[in-house]
Amino acid sequence: MNEVIQTILNHRSHRHFEDKQLTDEQIKTIITCAQSASTSSFIQAYSIIGVRDKEKKKKLAEIAGNQEYVENNGHFFVFCADLYRHTIIGENEQIDVTPSIESTEKFMVALIDASLAAQNAAIAAESMGLGICYIGGIRNNLDEVTKILKTPERVIPLFGLAVGFPTKLNEKKPRLPFEHVYHEDEYEKNKEVYIGQLQNYDDLISNYYEERTDGKRKDRWTEQMARMLDRKSRMYMKEFIQKNKLDLH
Amino acid sequence: MNEVIQTILNHRSHRHFEDKQLTDEQIKTIITCAQSASTSSFIQAYSIIGVRDKEKKKKLAEIAGNQEYVENNGHFFVFCADLYRHTIIGENEQIDVTPSIESTEKFMVALIDASLAAQNAAIAAESMGLGICYIGGIRNNLDEVTKILKTPERVIPLFGLAVGFPTKLNEKKPRLPFEHVYHEDEYEKNKEVYIGQLQNYDDLISNYYEERTDGKRKDRWTEQMARMLDRKSRMYMKEFIQKNKLDLH
Repeated sequence: MNEVIQTILNHRSHRHFEDKQLTDEQIKTIITCAQSASTSSFIQAYSIIGVRDKEKKKKLAEIAGNQEYVENNGHFFVFCADLYRHTIIGENEQIDVTPSIESTEKFMVALIDASLAAQNAAIAAESMGLGICYIGGIRNNLDEVTKILKTPERVIPLFGLAVGFPTKLNEKKPRLPFEHVYHEDEYEKNKEVYIGQLQNYDDLISNYYEERTDGKRKDRWTEQMARMLDRKSRMYMKEFIQKNKLDLH
Repeated sequence: MNEVIQTILNHRSHRHFEDKQLTDEQIKTIITCAQSASTSSFIQAYSIIGVRDKEKKKKLAEIAGNQEYVENNGHFFVFCADLYRHTIIGENEQIDVTPSIESTEKFMVALIDASLAAQNAAIAAESMGLGICYIGGIRNNLDEVTKILKTPERVIPLFGLAVGFPTKLNEKKPRLPFEHVYHEDEYEKNKEVYIGQLQNYDDLISNYYEERTDGKRKDRWTEQMARMLDRKSRMYMKEFIQKNKLDLH
């Protein structure tokens, strides 16, 4: 197993960091790695905002549901879908790019581009001995986040990436069974097979929690998911995205 | 520079592969790496379909605009946003998860999850000496793709990943300037600065093409982008996604 695969398989989220900032060189390496990712038709439809300002970090931590590692880390990156620069390009070249930019297709492209870049950043950071944690919680209130980061229209902050020098080694959580996630030639739609796989996984996850909490917790994964999806969270999103003139048609 | 960062920075897309299939072990390693990526609230909202069937690959290559490397490669993976299993979970747990699953927020979560997984797969493959190419072209006709792969409702094939033993070393394309993509504390909205950065990049890209084509080609990046965005491509996407009961509200 090579060093790259070892790094990837060794991933776990980190939520406790030393009070020590990343160096400019480390930040530069992480961003350069992010930029090396593939991008749809060379469109490069994303931006990254590094947050150093203490007040801003504090506000972002509150928005994310008081996650203190959003405030206390080695550096906090925000990955954004970005079609603002392409809007400006259209203006400059006097070509009406609006229908294209406002399409669901291009919204998807920007999300995918930003995410590929982010995962490169994450792996690069981990390879340097740093710990990472993705922060979807900034989507709790994107109106506020866009004010804090002063992003223009057609720039959507998608998630944060807290990076830092880890102080505590978390456990890795077992993923869905290989056969459940990976299909060959066609999607396995047989519900009996599908549900059987989920039950096996439920047992695995239930044991995982039981062992780690001295039997206090033994929730099944499907139960966790149903509970989470029962809460209607961030239902303002469509309105927010469309107000920012993306995903309109 | 460690081996991981070297692998990441050494990325380029490959479009010519030996006639040699990946081993099952290689496929398993790639998928396991994909699954190691972070996932929003442990939701794991994606699936991967490996395509071996020659006829299916041929059809996918046609859909992707006759890209022959979709047909001829070491293995072809299709990454899908997947909220089908969560639909079944809701049914089984007798909880109405539908409003949540049909939200724009969860559509975004699934896209991000699938993309993080894909980039792990890409890096893992590259670390094994394999070449990769993302294939957004399958989105040219998702109605057909879902028929070929027999995906159920709420599973959206997002892009392919052609992987194989490369026969030709492509060049790396220079990315947008660091300062243009990376902001600190707030987004740089000063149009003069912004356009200046794009002009510098235009010069870089123009020189890049000129050198590689003996002066035959010297398009600027902004010109390329404006031209691409002038074509309204895949404008059926919103209807397709909503027919599949995602991104509805």
